[in-house]
Amino acid sequence: MPGNSFGQFFRITTAGESHGPGNVVIIDGVPPGIPVSVDDLMVDINRRRPGQSKLTTQRKEADAPEFLAGIFEGRTTGTSVAILIRNTDQRSKDYSDIKDKYRPGHADYTYDARYGFRDYRGGGRSSARETTARVAAGVLAKKLIERDFGGRVTGYVCQVGSVKANIPSPQDVSLQQVEQLPDGSPNIVRCPDYDAAAKMIDVIDTVRMDTDSIGGVSEIVATGVPAGLGEPVFDKLKADLAKALFSLPAVLGVEYGIGFGCAELRGSENNDIFESRDGTITTATNRHGGMLGGISSGLPIVLRAAIKPTSSLAKEQPTVTRDGTPTAISTKGRHDPCLLPRFVPMGEAMVAIVLADHWLRWKAIDR
Amino acid sequence: MPGNSFGQFFRITTAGESHGPGNVVIIDGVPPGIPVSVDDLMVDINRRRPGQSKLTTQRKEADAPEFLAGIFEGRTTGTSVAILIRNTDQRSKDYSDIKDKYRPGHADYTYDARYGFRDYRGGGRSSARETTARVAAGVLAKKLIERDFGGRVTGYVCQVGSVKANIPSPQDVSLQQVEQLPDGSPNIVRCPDYDAAAKMIDVIDTVRMDTDSIGGVSEIVATGVPAGLGEPVFDKLKADLAKALFSLPAVLGVEYGIGFGCAELRGSENNDIFESRDGTITTATNRHGGMLGGISSGLPIVLRAAIKPTSSLAKEQPTVTRDGTPTAISTKGRHDPCLLPRFVPMGEAMVAIVLADHWLRWKAIDR
Amino acid sequence: MPGNSFGQFFRITTAGESHGPGNVVIIDGVPPGIPVSVDDLMVDINRRRPGQSKLTTQRKEADAPEFLAGIFEGRTTGTSVAILIRNTDQRSKDYSDIKDKYRPGHADYTYDARYGFRDYRGGGRSSARETTARVAAGVLAKKLIERDFGGRVTGYVCQVGSVKANIPSPQDVSLQQVEQLPDGSPNIVRCPDYDAAAKMIDVIDTVRMDTDSIGGVSEIVATGVPAGLGEPVFDKLKADLAKALFSLPAVLGVEYGIGFGCAELRGSENNDIFESRDGTITTATNRHGGMLGGISSGLPIVLRAAIKPTSSLAKEQPTVTRDGTPTAISTKGRHDPCLLPRFVPMGEAMVAIVLADHWLRWKAIDR
Amino acid sequence: MPGNSFGQFFRITTAGESHGPGNVVIIDGVPPGIPVSVDDLMVDINRRRPGQSKLTTQRKEADAPEFLAGIFEGRTTGTSVAILIRNTDQRSKDYSDIKDKYRPGHADYTYDARYGFRDYRGGGRSSARETTARVAAGVLAKKLIERDFGGRVTGYVCQVGSVKANIPSPQDVSLQQVEQLPDGSPNIVRCPDYDAAAKMIDVIDTVRMDTDSIGGVSEIVATGVPAGLGEPVFDKLKADLAKALFSLPAVLGVEYGIGFGCAELRGSENNDIFESRDGTITTATNRHGGMLGGISSGLPIVLRAAIKPTSSLAKEQPTVTRDGTPTAISTKGRHDPCLLPRFVPMGEAMVAIVLADHWLRWKAIDR
Repeated sequence: MPGNSFGQFFRITTAGESHGPGNVVIIDGVPPGIPVSVDDLMVDINRRRPGQSKLTTQRKEADAPEFLAGIFEGRTTGTSVAILIRNTDQRSKDYSDIKDKYRPGHADYTYDARYGFRDYRGGGRSSARETTARVAAGVLAKKLIERDFGGRVTGYVCQVGSVKANIPSPQDVSLQQVEQLPDGSPNIVRCPDYDAAAKMIDVIDTVRMDTDSIGGVSEIVATGVPAGLGEPVFDKLKADLAKALFSLPAVLGVEYGIGFGCAELRGSENNDIFESRDGTITTATNRHGGMLGGISSGLPIVLRAAIKPTSSLAKEQPTVTRDGTPTAISTKGRHDPCLLPRFVPMGEAMVAIVLADHWLRWKAIDR
Repeated sequence: MPGNSFGQFFRITTAGESHGPGNVVIIDGVPPGIPVSVDDLMVDINRRRPGQSKLTTQRKEADAPEFLAGIFEGRTTGTSVAILIRNTDQRSKDYSDIKDKYRPGHADYTYDARYGFRDYRGGGRSSARETTARVAAGVLAKKLIERDFGGRVTGYVCQVGSVKANIPSPQDVSLQQVEQLPDGSPNIVRCPDYDAAAKMIDVIDTVRMDTDSIGGVSEIVATGVPAGLGEPVFDKLKADLAKALFSLPAVLGVEYGIGFGCAELRGSENNDIFESRDGTITTATNRHGGMLGGISSGLPIVLRAAIKPTSSLAKEQPTVTRDGTPTAISTKGRHDPCLLPRFVPMGEAMVAIVLADHWLRWKAIDR
Repeated sequence: MPGNSFGQFFRITTAGESHGPGNVVIIDGVPPGIPVSVDDLMVDINRRRPGQSKLTTQRKEADAPEFLAGIFEGRTTGTSVAILIRNTDQRSKDYSDIKDKYRPGHADYTYDARYGFRDYRGGGRSSARETTARVAAGVLAKKLIERDFGGRVTGYVCQVGSVKANIPSPQDVSLQQVEQLPDGSPNIVRCPDYDAAAKMIDVIDTVRMDTDSIGGVSEIVATGVPAGLGEPVFDKLKADLAKALFSLPAVLGVEYGIGFGCAELRGSENNDIFESRDGTITTATNRHGGMLGGISSGLPIVLRAAIKPTSSLAKEQPTVTRDGTPTAISTKGRHDPCLLPRFVPMGEAMVAIVLADHWLRWKAIDR
Repeated sequence: MPGNSFGQFFRITTAGESHGPGNVVIIDGVPPGIPVSVDDLMVDINRRRPGQSKLTTQRKEADAPEFLAGIFEGRTTGTSVAILIRNTDQRSKDYSDIKDKYRPGHADYTYDARYGFRDYRGGGRSSARETTARVAAGVLAKKLIERDFGGRVTGYVCQVGSVKANIPSPQDVSLQQVEQLPDGSPNIVRCPDYDAAAKMIDVIDTVRMDTDSIGGVSEIVATGVPAGLGEPVFDKLKADLAKALFSLPAVLGVEYGIGFGCAELRGSENNDIFESRDGTITTATNRHGGMLGGISSGLPIVLRAAIKPTSSLAKEQPTVTRDGTPTAISTKGRHDPCLLPRFVPMGEAMVAIVLADHWLRWKAIDR
């Protein structure tokens, strides 16, 4: 049953619920000598943090990570790293209503089916709170791939409701564009097409005032990845990246490169043509999203994840109790009207972890 | 690096290339006592077989599987099962041209980047030939889930090019509808909407005569799956199913339930409302595709995979040689103009393997 | 590299060093509904604790475990359990001498060979301090096997130096016999043959006064284990148990049943003869140590581990520095003159974890 | 349940029984470019082969391995290698007696307890026949470690019954000494102390004529292993090596270095003292058997395994039937009177596989 580990070589194992003492991650397979500090962790933890803008839940979480193991004199030792992020602002009473009512779109019912016993004070293990630990681990993965091959992972929001961003060159989007508007103020929706960003904010504001929520799409781009990462059959790079993104809450679809658009194309339209540029074999177009046969091609890896609208609504929804009695539920306060802005660092973290894992796997056999 | 195994508990490990002696699969974790014969394997192997209709490659492959281990008196023994499918119609000379030229859309270049050494007589390990072993293993998975909980997995083609099928009730599509037309003749495109099927055949015929190819979408449905399968975090059922499908060649996108359509919906539109029916908690709609919080809900599991158009084209395409010299390539004969009809049994097999795996995982802790 | 996890289904993952913030264990695969408290953990943690008698190191460690996750209302939830045991009495200055000198018998040199970088303030990750986390996890494993099949794991010391205990019936040794003398005072050497225990204490006292140390043998017995646990090939129960014990510090040999004594026997002397007793098939003798073909036979499982004398000596020993310069080292104070008494709970924990793991594996396929 | 795989990175997965079509191994994680041929495999397969001398069973097995996958132009491709060894001389009728009688010392009873269903025509999956596949895989492991770091693994017999060999310098024993006597004739008992070898042959001859069998001890030595292989906690090199040896049939004990002898030593007697020799840090003595803290020290790795006397005896032994009725059994013909000579290549193979695995793991993080 051990479903709380991810990765073969750069492997994270997590524990923690929304309303327990905290969330902890053990990161195994980290090479020795990588400098890392709590401040480094905070960069992405703050990007994932609730309450960062009017677009996100107003819960306050201190989210102060502590290294429990694996770090000596500011560098990784090569043995397992452990990071603890304690829960603070839990307000258990807010959740007492959901003890016996199944929230639509949530895992309450399926949890009961699986375990017959459930921490009813929130999502428990299925709460997005759990992703804090992944984001912390992702910081180490990002450091490893940047140190070893200049790899970078950047995510952003490319669709909210029917508003779609125009991102002509995904590989050129910078973290600064994602985080800041031209005037230096925060880009709270994390869409680097600023016109679209303004419209997305309007959409989110509207659904928020309607006590409703809205879905969207996030794009994650990895640059600097050398050709040759990934395994030919089951552990194709695309397969592990897809599992990584689908393992995040609320993801209902994943595609890379041309994605579902490939269904309508002919082979002669879809194939990217190889050419030699400065002594390197590459392709001018990137409909293949940086992976061929499940192995990285050296081109930017471009993935998209579809995120459903937040299931928790202040608006009243019909449902049933554990014994099947019809009732209604409205989830009070403090929920994101749109999950997309906070999804970005989660998606980046999972992509970075997969790349770190496949990098180590590649080193083991090919050098 | 061991990327040739899939599954934690019901685990398959494969070896084999398109032009080596054969493909072999070891299936570990099969409970004892399941009746299985070579004839059982042939049902799905024949559905995957090349040369079955004008829509598929005209290669002839005998595809005669042999049980090497794990079967005694027609039943599984509980120890590892091995199945060998020898390669027969290899015609290595057909492929000599590709020794030094990189085929657009293929893994030739990425393989060289990974291994620096490659069986150039075809796709090698990345050939779709490898999936024969998965299809054979999938038959055992299907038998296990049907025996233990009445689970069934049925796939079909729902889009080819711009032709989309209308499938109002995915869970009601039968294997017979997928395989046969009302007049008993073979449904060669495996689309249960027969009007759409006729149009799809026209599209494929057209691209075939143009020495081109076309993409599409396949839908895979699992019925009878009890609520409670899947793990809450990394091994969410949706995550393992997505990895399973993305591990197949040519898959560029996977979605379940409402999928990418969720991006445009509000929470109040997207949430499926719980109700009690005959003492069972269920939902009237199934936008959640049978999984909530990564755990099965008891509703039909509905997945879709986007398949790119075949990369091999008889039409000449520009490319480069291993040393970067511009050249052109046309892949002679014997390629599927559309991968979709033969994808169906592959997708079914991978979905069945994931369900068998999570079923055993569930038994270990919950009974 | 992930070498910090153990078990396939009941799996523990640990992190922590002797001189970092603490040691943490994540236990995956724990079924829901098992009652457990911090007090339960303390029973075995106290048996492993330093400073418990004159026979052990005089270091004081508070060893107060904290559940971080996986427990709700005093019971396991079925999701991953995390336990943190903070380090308290570290006294880093005591260890400054060993920064550059390689302690004989320790892992200092091999760590530098592996990582090139080492937390020199003690054994780091290779310190026996790390086993606290295993002992805590072992408590959960013990609870699971006792609840599900009445399994019990009891260890004791059967040899110190040349003093060998006479234990005619290993399966009848009780925890009380191991922990207490007939007069109710603590059995500080944990040998249930009280005459031998007295002699062992004399031996340990003697080496302690000589600033030296002494080796020994511990026997671990598991009763109540049903026939049928274990896998036929690589994951034989004996193989996983041996790995479990060898993964503990200072273990140089493991045997079960007749062990190395089998080398001198004929088959007709060694084979245990099957018989039927009260409708159950069993054997009158147990030279096979409860396992045949790697699978449990229903008889008591009897294992022995040889433990080397503590490597750290107050007595001065010659050695070299990191750059190879000859020097000498004497490890001041606070080391166990004999590791055996504190080994007992560690060995029990590892055996219990293996049994819990194989129990869940058995349930997955056979029920 | 998947207990049919071994290794994390250099991983073998096997299937096959004594009386099925054959035994197959898939070897995952083999780096590309290693030259290997069927003749290479035959060297060790012939050493393991039955019928090679009067000391072994007189069964004839052709043991002709076939590469099914992973080899191209005589070299490994980097993808999974598969090897099939068909069974030929099965003579199923010889075994019909054991369908309902439990052979003392065998896994018949425990198999029934585990699976409730058993291939009764021999040991099935628990037959030593299964080790042929491991020996074949071991050849690839030996080639890898020799190519990459000059590693060599040599095993021999050091005890049969009460006859003990005197091997003053285990690391200097050559394959030729193990296989040949000074006069060039075969060293059929594989003991490099020729005086002891002669006595061992006498002992085996005696028990054979008594329709009995005899146990013994084998020593396996690995030289050229660099310092730094192994993981600090669960995957200690000693732990993985012990599991590897205990996973072989009939092994009841494993020790390394001074082994169980450590129990009687003081720390000052047992510690090996570090010194610098030619700029390398090493120890003059090797009581630590080449591993400290679970990590290789650069000294020869020296392991010993205790092997029980063959359980199958022509001599009649009492036993019971499946339903518990007392009966007697005598296993006709064709069994090894002593397992030791044929154990040597099995032990070598498993040790080589562990070293190959840890070598790849080390490369992944440390280079």
